[in-house]
Amino acid sequence: MKLKDLYMYLRGDIHRIELELGDAVSGASPVLEEATLQLLQAGGKRIRPVFMLLSAKFGNYDIQKLKHAGVALEFIHMASLVHDDVIDDSDLRRGKETVKAKWDNRVAMQTGDYLFGKAISSVALFQEQGIHEAMSRSMHDMVLGEIEQIRYKYEWEQNVRTYLRRIKRKTAVLIASSCNIGAQAAGVSRPEQRALANFGHQVGMAYQITDDILDFTSSEENLGKPAGGDLLQGNITLPVLFAMEKSPSFKKELKQAFADGIPSRERLDHLLEKINASGGIEYARNINERYLQKAYQSLDALPDIPARRSLYEIASYIGTREH
Amino acid sequence: MKLKDLYMYLRGDIHRIELELGDAVSGASPVLEEATLQLLQAGGKRIRPVFMLLSAKFGNYDIQKLKHAGVALEFIHMASLVHDDVIDDSDLRRGKETVKAKWDNRVAMQTGDYLFGKAISSVALFQEQGIHEAMSRSMHDMVLGEIEQIRYKYEWEQNVRTYLRRIKRKTAVLIASSCNIGAQAAGVSRPEQRALANFGHQVGMAYQITDDILDFTSSEENLGKPAGGDLLQGNITLPVLFAMEKSPSFKKELKQAFADGIPSRERLDHLLEKINASGGIEYARNINERYLQKAYQSLDALPDIPARRSLYEIASYIGTREH
Repeated sequence: MKLKDLYMYLRGDIHRIELELGDAVSGASPVLEEATLQLLQAGGKRIRPVFMLLSAKFGNYDIQKLKHAGVALEFIHMASLVHDDVIDDSDLRRGKETVKAKWDNRVAMQTGDYLFGKAISSVALFQEQGIHEAMSRSMHDMVLGEIEQIRYKYEWEQNVRTYLRRIKRKTAVLIASSCNIGAQAAGVSRPEQRALANFGHQVGMAYQITDDILDFTSSEENLGKPAGGDLLQGNITLPVLFAMEKSPSFKKELKQAFADGIPSRERLDHLLEKINASGGIEYARNINERYLQKAYQSLDALPDIPARRSLYEIASYIGTREH
Repeated sequence: MKLKDLYMYLRGDIHRIELELGDAVSGASPVLEEATLQLLQAGGKRIRPVFMLLSAKFGNYDIQKLKHAGVALEFIHMASLVHDDVIDDSDLRRGKETVKAKWDNRVAMQTGDYLFGKAISSVALFQEQGIHEAMSRSMHDMVLGEIEQIRYKYEWEQNVRTYLRRIKRKTAVLIASSCNIGAQAAGVSRPEQRALANFGHQVGMAYQITDDILDFTSSEENLGKPAGGDLLQGNITLPVLFAMEKSPSFKKELKQAFADGIPSRERLDHLLEKINASGGIEYARNINERYLQKAYQSLDALPDIPARRSLYEIASYIGTREH
C-alpha cells in the first residue's frame, strides 16, 4: 500500500496542482528554473495539498480556487526545504543532491526566496482574511522553528517541551494551516474548520515525530542517508532526550563524544545502540501514538464522508510508515 | 537641509514605527536579535514608511493602523538588503559591516527570512484585499528583480529596457506599494490611490537611477565604498549602457577588461573616466529628470494639503541628492 493509493480519487486534482506548480516556475532565470524543476521532479508526497483538498471536501469544493492554495502550500514547504539545506549544510535529501550542493548556497537562498514570492502571489488571490492569517502564521512560525532548530543544535540542556514547540513550528503549523485553508476556501462551518485544523496539528506532530524516529530505525536504503544523521548534525530529538533524561552517565558520554569533535561512524553507532537500549525509541513511539489518537478523535466532529475516511487512513499511514 | 527636515511633523509617528520595529525583533535567538538590531541601528532613511504615512494623509489617517504597514514595508526592505549582500558578496553597506560579513551567509539568510516572516505577520493584520495584493506583488517583484540582477551581471549584451525593468522590480515597485498601501489603509479614493501609486513608481525609478549615478560621481567618504563598485561587481547601469552603445570600441575594451579577470583599481579608474567622458552620466541624469517630472505631475491630481508639498520636496531631494 502506497500513500497515494489512499486518495486515488484526488488524482486528477493533484495533477492539476502539479501543472500549476510547473507553470509557476517557468520563466525565471535558467539556473532558477532548473533548480526549481529539480525540486519539483524530486517528487515529494504533496501531502499539504492533499490535506487541503480533503478538508475542502467538507464544503463547496472548487478546484479552480483550491489549486492556488495548493501551489502556495507546496511552494512554502519547498522553500523551507531549500533554505534548511543551507542551514544544515546538507548535500543530500532523500538520496538526491540538494540545490545548495548542485549549485551553491546563494542559488539555494535565491530559489527559496523565489518560491516564497510565488507562494505569496498565490495567496494574494484569496479574499478570505482568515486565509491570509493562516498563511502568514505558517510562514512566520516556520521561520521561528528554523531559528530554534539552529539555536538548540548541540544544546544538550534542552527538554521535551522545547522539542515539541520546535516541531510544532517547523512542521505541524503548516499542516494544520493546510487543513484550515482548505476548509476556509470551501466555506466549511467554523466548528468543522477548527476540527480540521486541530486534526492537521495532531497529524503534523505525529508526522515529524515519525520522521525523527525513522532517522534511528530506518536503513540507509530507505532513508537516502545513513541512520543517526539528525544526532550527527546536532538535531536532538525525542529518543535522545529520553536517553539523556534516563541516564545522566549517558548524557555525559554523549556530551563528551561531541566535545571531542564530530564522532566517528563507530562511535556514533555505539551511541545509537545505547539510545535504542534506553527505550528512547519506544518512548517516542508512545508519544507519536498519543498524537495520532488525538488526530482520529478530531475527525469525530466531522460528517462521515469519504474524505473523512481518507484523512483517517492518511493519518494512520503517516504515523506508522517505515520510510 | 537633510531629508528628515522635510517631514518634521511626522517625527512622532516615525518614532512610533521605530519602536514597533524594535519590539518586533526582540525575542528571536540571541544572534538573530543582534543581527536585526544592527540592521535597525544602521538607521536608513525609513523612506518607505514616510511615503506610506504621507499618502495616508489624503484620507483617514490612523497611526495605530498605519504603523503595521510601516513595519511590514521596512522589514521587507531590510530583508532584501540582507539577502542582497549575500548575493553580491558585500562586506560593507554604507560604510558598515554587513550581516553576512560580521556573521556568515547562513545567518544573513536566516535574518532575511525572519524579517520576511515578521513583515508577513504585520500585513496579515489588514482586512483590505488590495493591501495584500500590493504587498505580495512587491515581494514577488523584488525577488524577480534580484534574480534579474544576478542574471544580467557581467552581461554586456543587455540594454536600457532590461535595466529599467530590473530597477522597477528591485526598487520602484516597493516604493509605489508604500504609497498605495498608505492610501488604501486610509480609505483614499481610487483615483487618488492611483495618483499616489504612480507618484511612488516614478520616484522609485528616480531613486534607483540616482543611486546608480552616485556610484560613479560620489566620493568614497560619502558612499562608504570606492566609486565604480557597481561596475566592478558586474552591475551594469545607465552610464555604462550609454557608453557601450555610443562606442563599440569602448564596449570591446570593457569586455576585454573583465575577460582578463577582475580589473585592477588603475584599470577600473581608466574605464570610469571613459564612461564619464562618453556623456553617460549626463544621459542618466536626463532620464532621471524625466521620471522626476512625471512624479511631480502625478501630484497634480491630489488636493493641495501639506503632505502633497512634502511628497514634492522629498521627490526633489531624492532625485538630486549628492550622497
